[in-house]
Amino acid sequence: MYAAQHLRRGSVEVTLIDRRNFHLFQPLLYQVATGSLSPGEICAPLRGILSKNRNTRVLLGEAADIDPEARRLTLTDNSTFEYDSLIIATGSKSSYYGKDEWRGWAPSLKTVEEATSIRHKILYAFEAAERVDDADHRRAWLTFAIVGGGPTGVELGGALAEIAHHTLRHDFRSIRPQEARIIILDGAPRVLSAYPEDLSQRAERSLVRLGVQVRSGVRVVNVDANGVRFHTADGREQDLPARTVLWAGGVTTTGFGRTVGQRTHATTDKGGRIQVNPDLTIPGFPSIYVVGDLADARNPDGKPLPGVAQVAMQGGAYAAKAIVARLNGPKELPPFRYFDKGNLAVIGRGAAVADIFGLHLSGYLAWLVWVFIHLMYLVQFQSRIVVFIQWGFQYLTFSRGARLITGTAVTDSTHPGSTLRNTAEEQ
Amino acid sequence: MYAAQHLRRGSVEVTLIDRRNFHLFQPLLYQVATGSLSPGEICAPLRGILSKNRNTRVLLGEAADIDPEARRLTLTDNSTFEYDSLIIATGSKSSYYGKDEWRGWAPSLKTVEEATSIRHKILYAFEAAERVDDADHRRAWLTFAIVGGGPTGVELGGALAEIAHHTLRHDFRSIRPQEARIIILDGAPRVLSAYPEDLSQRAERSLVRLGVQVRSGVRVVNVDANGVRFHTADGREQDLPARTVLWAGGVTTTGFGRTVGQRTHATTDKGGRIQVNPDLTIPGFPSIYVVGDLADARNPDGKPLPGVAQVAMQGGAYAAKAIVARLNGPKELPPFRYFDKGNLAVIGRGAAVADIFGLHLSGYLAWLVWVFIHLMYLVQFQSRIVVFIQWGFQYLTFSRGARLITGTAVTDSTHPGSTLRNTAEEQ
Repeated sequence: MYAAQHLRRGSVEVTLIDRRNFHLFQPLLYQVATGSLSPGEICAPLRGILSKNRNTRVLLGEAADIDPEARRLTLTDNSTFEYDSLIIATGSKSSYYGKDEWRGWAPSLKTVEEATSIRHKILYAFEAAERVDDADHRRAWLTFAIVGGGPTGVELGGALAEIAHHTLRHDFRSIRPQEARIIILDGAPRVLSAYPEDLSQRAERSLVRLGVQVRSGVRVVNVDANGVRFHTADGREQDLPARTVLWAGGVTTTGFGRTVGQRTHATTDKGGRIQVNPDLTIPGFPSIYVVGDLADARNPDGKPLPGVAQVAMQGGAYAAKAIVARLNGPKELPPFRYFDKGNLAVIGRGAAVADIFGLHLSGYLAWLVWVFIHLMYLVQFQSRIVVFIQWGFQYLTFSRGARLITGTAVTDSTHPGSTLRNTAEEQ
Repeated sequence: MYAAQHLRRGSVEVTLIDRRNFHLFQPLLYQVATGSLSPGEICAPLRGILSKNRNTRVLLGEAADIDPEARRLTLTDNSTFEYDSLIIATGSKSSYYGKDEWRGWAPSLKTVEEATSIRHKILYAFEAAERVDDADHRRAWLTFAIVGGGPTGVELGGALAEIAHHTLRHDFRSIRPQEARIIILDGAPRVLSAYPEDLSQRAERSLVRLGVQVRSGVRVVNVDANGVRFHTADGREQDLPARTVLWAGGVTTTGFGRTVGQRTHATTDKGGRIQVNPDLTIPGFPSIYVVGDLADARNPDGKPLPGVAQVAMQGGAYAAKAIVARLNGPKELPPFRYFDKGNLAVIGRGAAVADIFGLHLSGYLAWLVWVFIHLMYLVQFQSRIVVFIQWGFQYLTFSRGARLITGTAVTDSTHPGSTLRNTAEEQ
């Protein structure tokens, strides 16, 4: 999207192909999963964003294959497109480290559908707990395990704690939602391991204050309907009975990303990311740019770049400028250099950590920075106002307006009340 | 919900059982289906609405059977509940007049899932048209047939016209969305046949001005992947090739509603509605009240009551008061009397018709009344503000922020690009 926007004034014809018709503002997806916002509030239709770009066509379609010699792209419906320059930004999907059978029990947070499905799972767990008499079953329904202590895991943990301790506080008669246990299982020795150590510690203290348990240095060895089995840091095996397991683990490239790597004989790392030249092209294919999570890119000083939105946005803009520069004459652009504006992770109401130009912030101030920046980066002005109002109400009342159990949950096939889920659709 | 709210101050214990965890504000569901609003903006969590009612439990569950002699209700998960008084308000579902195989081709608008699925279908049709070269196929993708000319059909037709003529106007390169044909097929001799004739005529004129065709007095004889076949008023058979068919036909009672009728040996009409006493109880079962679409209720003057939200809301409040009155002493309530505040149907921006206490309004004034009343009836104050802002933006910019193709469409299995739909979830 950023590349298309930066190609607007070039004398080029642009075709943007995406398998979704909207741009998803990923950093707020956890708020859809936890009932604060609706999908429409954090998504913007691609056609709407680019409707003023008269040189740009938007097509709904999914890339399937590429012939880099013939400069031809094939979609899943077998239609083909020839190109002069190609920018590939197919990103990443969540990785279960080879255990794809866990996906059914522990949804991850990458798409709008997964977010509403996680929302379903979380809210349904409280509903089921209210109706179960057996104390152990109730406890398992009220236990929420989050695998992964990166920004997504921390956000989910903080939001779950607020739901249990505040939002649902007066809503049940048989259970006390405050009894819910929220546990982050992290493979690293500390949460937010990509952040400076002092910020990690502050984040963990904030989580504990919210009532979230953090188990660091653990290795998950199984996930199923009953919960999680893991090895602790000192090697013991433990079972955590939990009816709700959320996956906030690592990422890997998509199927098309791997195909690109094979067709171009590129060097890829174990996550499937493609090693690119300093100008973000694939070695040997100067007309193919790779940006975002699919690229294993480095700054001129050799420092590898993280898989975050800022890198993808700047990479897209760079590729667009490089294409226009090449068209306009012999002078080429200098190598891509990522301008790191810093890192921000939110934990909950009034609690965040920020590392901005080396300045370490935490608590309320960091949270205000987080709120401001995330409102500003929402693409549609309309969404900014609506999200601002939703947040304002939530801040004042602790209520979360989008607490809907809709669609189908990813799993839930094993519990007795599972017939509840689909009846409204079957009608 | 209205019954539970009116039982708040009674010395009674209330259990509210619903198969959804939220209250859906049905009159604005068509705005979710046409990309104006998000589901969370027109739904409110039941527990949130009733959390202050300390005498009320909310349970997620679906009624399956009833033993009226033993006063026992059974849910689909086989749990049972005994009651002193029972209020049944299970409403209606859309009816395909015995042709349930049409449902797969022509979704109706009753649930949130159906609304997002219709949104998917409408937006996908434009995307497919943009990618199809054959003129006939393109025309079929750009033809939208709506079966039924009641309020829902008129609302959908007006909103579709606005999408085609304004919202998507600048968004495509190969097609002109304005070329879309929107056709309402109505079995009655005029649209909004429940309204006074002059308002019907004004509504039809508004529709025509928006570019919607109305075919009255037709009988639909088939719906499939290719479109609709119908008999015209003068008996000729016609085919309308349309890849998008939406069902805004009649309603019938749910499965549980029919079970109640059988178990109580009640008299039911052909739509399955249960004939009730003047106090809304089932003859022979003074402890069972039926309110809303399931009740075939009449005013004391013998006038049958329509299946609209106002009747259901007033019926729920009446049943609550009747139960409390009976507990408090020998004096019973007078029979239920529906207080008809009037009818309102919206056609599009600045166009509506209203019949308020016999006063016939149309055009801009009726539309302002519609906007005001619908904002006021939204249950959550937060939603009122958010919906007001969404509408304000839409009024000024013609944009519809929630134009997302998410989840799965009901059908679309026959067209070549169908692989697009689910890929994001399969990842």
